Amino acid sequence: MGFSLLEERIRRDGTVRGTDILKVDKFLNHQIDVTLLEEIGLEFHRRFRDVGVTKILTIEASGIAIACFAAKAFGVPMVFAKKNKTKNIAGDMYTAKVESFTHGKVYDIIVSKDFLLPEDKVLIVDDFLANGAALDGLIALVRQAGAEVVGAGIAIEKAFQPGGDRIRAAGVRVESLARVAAMDEQAGVTFY
Amino acid sequence: MGFSLLEERIRRDGTVRGTDILKVDKFLNHQIDVTLLEEIGLEFHRRFRDVGVTKILTIEASGIAIACFAAKAFGVPMVFAKKNKTKNIAGDMYTAKVESFTHGKVYDIIVSKDFLLPEDKVLIVDDFLANGAALDGLIALVRQAGAEVVGAGIAIEKAFQPGGDRIRAAGVRVESLARVAAMDEQAGVTFY
Repeated sequence: MGFSLLEERIRRDGTVRGTDILKVDKFLNHQIDVTLLEEIGLEFHRRFRDVGVTKILTIEASGIAIACFAAKAFGVPMVFAKKNKTKNIAGDMYTAKVESFTHGKVYDIIVSKDFLLPEDKVLIVDDFLANGAALDGLIALVRQAGAEVVGAGIAIEKAFQPGGDRIRAAGVRVESLARVAAMDEQAGVTFY
Repeated sequence: MGFSLLEERIRRDGTVRGTDILKVDKFLNHQIDVTLLEEIGLEFHRRFRDVGVTKILTIEASGIAIACFAAKAFGVPMVFAKKNKTKNIAGDMYTAKVESFTHGKVYDIIVSKDFLLPEDKVLIVDDFLANGAALDGLIALVRQAGAEVVGAGIAIEKAFQPGGDRIRAAGVRVESLARVAAMDEQAGVTFY
């Protein structure tokens, strides 16, 4: 079920380029409307309040803002995975490979072993879900720690791309607040 | 004047390596204590409430979390400058060069012209201030827009490095919540 506050904002302030690019940098990932993000955090809390979340996990950079307000709504710490720039990975890090379709590169994401513990129940949060590569990587980090992925809270899912359905079929509860069915420069965005 | 809540947290959970590296990734820039960050945002608001702030500006990635809570305290939008990865910079961006002493590289930071306007009164926010290179770059972006820098709110200033004093001498009001006078692996951190 969509979250109308976000869907309406995408209709009003989002820009479609071609059939694949949805620019939301006016309110979500360059300029940030923190009032909207606070509402998004509360909505994630309404959807995942009963699963015992102990930690919010996201990936730098554009997931951090949403994850902050999710962590505030749940009253738990937030951890963000870093995109690794160096070749050497210290032994005190969990690591996973992520293939970026946007940039055509493979990069490592890392998180300190100090901040994902076997007893953690982790809600993964991100701004976008499309092919699911970043979400796959974050799930891998949690499982390396022996912790539990209790779900993924996504702001915008490009539901015409395969990531969301694939990851749900693998047994992860994915809740997307705006599920884009199709988009077009003239017609705009339609949601499921 | 220091902000004791942050100073005490640095004493308790920060780790000094050598005489120059202060690791605060337990609460400030890898795992994030959002309760502490909310208090930091409120403290920035107490210090800058009377200068008509219209926008918070920071730089990805570790400034984003603090800037979110500053923006919430002021009730204004947050904008984060991006570290540019591509050679081509579109004409709709303000851009500045930043020399990283930590990584020994020069990189571009960019912000869309849509999000810094001549009438903006900008409070720049960041987690660390040392040599001041990132802050110089952010100030340059604001001035390219014809906007006003009303101040800089910094969580931790390494006050034994020259950035803070240099930028204050140039006329920018810099408020740092924890000003580190010296640090040492045995003796820990001392504050001004």
